[in-house]
Amino acid sequence: MAVHKGNILKLRRLGIDTNLENIIFMRADSQVSRSEGFTANTRVLVHHLNHTMVATLNLVTSNLLLEGEAALSDAAFNLLQAREGSLVWITHLKPIASFSDVRAKMFGKKLTEQAFRHIISDITHGYYSKIEMAAFITACTGDNLSLDEIIYLTKAMIATGTRLKWKAPVIADKHSVGGLPGNRTTPIVVPIAAAAGLIIPKVSSRAITSPAGTADTIEVLTPVNLSISRIRDVVQKEGGCMAWGGAVHLSPADDIIISVEKALDVDSSGQMIASVLSKKAAAGSTHVVIDIPVGETAKVRTTEDALKLEYYFKAVGNVIGLSIEVLVSDGAQPVGRGIGPALEARDVLAVLRNQPDAPSDLKNRSLKLAALLLESVGKVPRGAGEEKARQLLESGAALDKFYRICQAQGGFREPTEALYRHPVVATKDGVVSRVNNRKLAKLAKLAGAPKSPAAGIHFVAPLGTHVRKGQTLFTIHSESRGELAYSIDFLKTDNNLIQLDPA
Amino acid sequence: MAVHKGNILKLRRLGIDTNLENIIFMRADSQVSRSEGFTANTRVLVHHLNHTMVATLNLVTSNLLLEGEAALSDAAFNLLQAREGSLVWITHLKPIASFSDVRAKMFGKKLTEQAFRHIISDITHGYYSKIEMAAFITACTGDNLSLDEIIYLTKAMIATGTRLKWKAPVIADKHSVGGLPGNRTTPIVVPIAAAAGLIIPKVSSRAITSPAGTADTIEVLTPVNLSISRIRDVVQKEGGCMAWGGAVHLSPADDIIISVEKALDVDSSGQMIASVLSKKAAAGSTHVVIDIPVGETAKVRTTEDALKLEYYFKAVGNVIGLSIEVLVSDGAQPVGRGIGPALEARDVLAVLRNQPDAPSDLKNRSLKLAALLLESVGKVPRGAGEEKARQLLESGAALDKFYRICQAQGGFREPTEALYRHPVVATKDGVVSRVNNRKLAKLAKLAGAPKSPAAGIHFVAPLGTHVRKGQTLFTIHSESRGELAYSIDFLKTDNNLIQLDPA
Repeated sequence: MAVHKGNILKLRRLGIDTNLENIIFMRADSQVSRSEGFTANTRVLVHHLNHTMVATLNLVTSNLLLEGEAALSDAAFNLLQAREGSLVWITHLKPIASFSDVRAKMFGKKLTEQAFRHIISDITHGYYSKIEMAAFITACTGDNLSLDEIIYLTKAMIATGTRLKWKAPVIADKHSVGGLPGNRTTPIVVPIAAAAGLIIPKVSSRAITSPAGTADTIEVLTPVNLSISRIRDVVQKEGGCMAWGGAVHLSPADDIIISVEKALDVDSSGQMIASVLSKKAAAGSTHVVIDIPVGETAKVRTTEDALKLEYYFKAVGNVIGLSIEVLVSDGAQPVGRGIGPALEARDVLAVLRNQPDAPSDLKNRSLKLAALLLESVGKVPRGAGEEKARQLLESGAALDKFYRICQAQGGFREPTEALYRHPVVATKDGVVSRVNNRKLAKLAKLAGAPKSPAAGIHFVAPLGTHVRKGQTLFTIHSESRGELAYSIDFLKTDNNLIQLDPA
Repeated sequence: MAVHKGNILKLRRLGIDTNLENIIFMRADSQVSRSEGFTANTRVLVHHLNHTMVATLNLVTSNLLLEGEAALSDAAFNLLQAREGSLVWITHLKPIASFSDVRAKMFGKKLTEQAFRHIISDITHGYYSKIEMAAFITACTGDNLSLDEIIYLTKAMIATGTRLKWKAPVIADKHSVGGLPGNRTTPIVVPIAAAAGLIIPKVSSRAITSPAGTADTIEVLTPVNLSISRIRDVVQKEGGCMAWGGAVHLSPADDIIISVEKALDVDSSGQMIASVLSKKAAAGSTHVVIDIPVGETAKVRTTEDALKLEYYFKAVGNVIGLSIEVLVSDGAQPVGRGIGPALEARDVLAVLRNQPDAPSDLKNRSLKLAALLLESVGKVPRGAGEEKARQLLESGAALDKFYRICQAQGGFREPTEALYRHPVVATKDGVVSRVNNRKLAKLAKLAGAPKSPAAGIHFVAPLGTHVRKGQTLFTIHSESRGELAYSIDFLKTDNNLIQLDPA
């Protein structure tokens, strides 16, 4: 490609935070725009020393920039490792060849292993725009991916990321498919398993469409942004860790995919299987227990869907060398009382501390998962897992291990509390007969979770509770007045979250 | 919703052109961001007097803005009809209820008429982000829309736009499904039909994924951004017009959908039928002739696909009260010689002016369509249309009518020529046996068409041409050196545009 003198520009820092969008600002009348035929919103390649990124062009029609200058959004400065005064070189972005496969997928074609490898590689390099990402995700939603395609996608995701290697032959791991508010078993299962002597280097994700991801909740209690070498140190010392997966780039394509899924508020089964298993394989795991909660308003709605998912998990796991155990569990209502990072962290601590008011559903669910893990790696005979897990939890051994892991990750801290609260009360006497998980989760998000860690819902009316008119069903917690008002607004248009039947 | 004092901000003009993206710039540490819990890339509602728009938030982390100030992208200033110093009020964007139907569509559900009405209404109001638009378009691509859903989508699009009413009982119209470079029959058919006494208030679109839309080509010759009252004047005076549909907001949702389809380079049949017929209905047409070119590298690849499309067009037309005639035509190679706005306009003028070197394929195709139109409205008996059309063209009556229409629209001008050119020659002797329409179109776009009107391809080697090594097959035209270099670059990686077989 021909290089023209005018294609080199000097960077100015304007201080514009666009979140993860890479924007380059250039004068509308600049030499580069005119000679290259760039217009606003053209996607271009920006080069600086050994770094190259794709950015969207915004044209400056004022004197904010001088001739010969360009500016980057804050995130783009970081990505390019550039500073004020750095020189950048701007070139055309070539048409993305792999997107023709995405178009084929949009029209219902099956894609090859090679096609998925190219698509995922281009996504990892940041060549796809948000619009193209949304098209790829939508084309792969629903039943649009065959089992073969899920395997190709999983392998492609593993190929693009870092892969951890461990000396131990057996590496334990767990995962929940989510969709159930408050289902925060990881910070209970990990210390139980580690206390039993298993190696469990657990990395979790942040929320995709929920009010709290496991990493969001654990971050309330201890730092989770651990480097790979830090993870190794923690695991070497304590046998387990509770880290955020995004910080170690186990599956960089997946992190980008998840950010768009979040904006669309979708999470399809094919993508999910590839996302989960690629991260487990990249983390070096050998034995994985997967919790699939089933309920009318959970992510998985019927036992039939759960069994299909179980089959897909096991089939893909088999191809990529992972032993998978599945627990199909009750997903009719939230687990514990808290929905939102800090509120869920309180439930976790209550269970680990064996407090008399600890939510028993969260405790029992954690014990079942820990038991399955202990049995699957052969630590105890089949059927003996739950007793072993209970003994480790109730003796305080798990709490001790939990504190040690937090210490190794950078220290333990108690959860914060939200400043603004609003109780929502029963409008009549009755028995709680139905709980809408999706709407409770939506309300917690409107209140600010997970961005504001102390925001969310404190839910005190599980199925079967007898309530009197005026009694609190749940309390909204928020860190800002605006968000509290916003979530209360939503209740005015839709207050059908908890159904009361005559007692 | 509670209004806080800090939610009112005074506008500064920073002069940032983001194309059609509405961006609001606010200080990261402003009262509004903190009290409302806004972060970078949050979508918010911005109110100014009687105008409201959805904008994406960029946070300013420098002193580019003072406390109490906000800035808008250039397009957002226009949309909101605001000026420097105007006060705006910022509020949360409520969750878009209709997007849950889009999610259902992503998972393969059939949508109701009501669902399409809500989705299209929200799109028209600008409530959908580009990502959400891409998901909606992808979910409706391929065979994902049933005939019923196409009818609902068409009706929803008609309902959101302006609808023109005419006193005449018969209003003629034409359309080509496109995909065939250079297929520019409208500026020939309209003057023939108008010269025959038909009322033909033709509105056309700009390019979606092609190097030139009909409106782009006609704009080279005469202004096309006509208001509705201007269209009425032109049609009253001359019986026909050749305007751009986007300027009259016949289907505002469709204009937004098209801008995203363009970014994805897709155009699916369901969306296309709804797009075309909603605009025809909105334009007040009663009789429409539709050209469907069929070819290996045209948009429609087989006669079977064309017949299915014909059935869908007629079925939807029947429900919404349009009489549809279809011409299934040969789409094996480009029509005429030009590909790109100005180059196509030259072909059109050559035909209208009865020049000896006028492309006969463009002429014959135009005569067939004009004939079908004259017959369908009953102006001439079946079978007598082509003779009548030929007589009007060859006598100069059509050219005279063409100039009059241009005059009424604001004046006629000759096409401009591109500064930079590059001939592509045969690498061996042979006969042209195959022409790749898609790649020629792509090359014309890389050269700058339709943004740069004089850019494109001048194609001089139609099927069956005997060529010698070194003889020009086509010439690339470009308005900038960068774009010319860019298109030549593409040829280096893919030069399989025109296949030569031994003579």
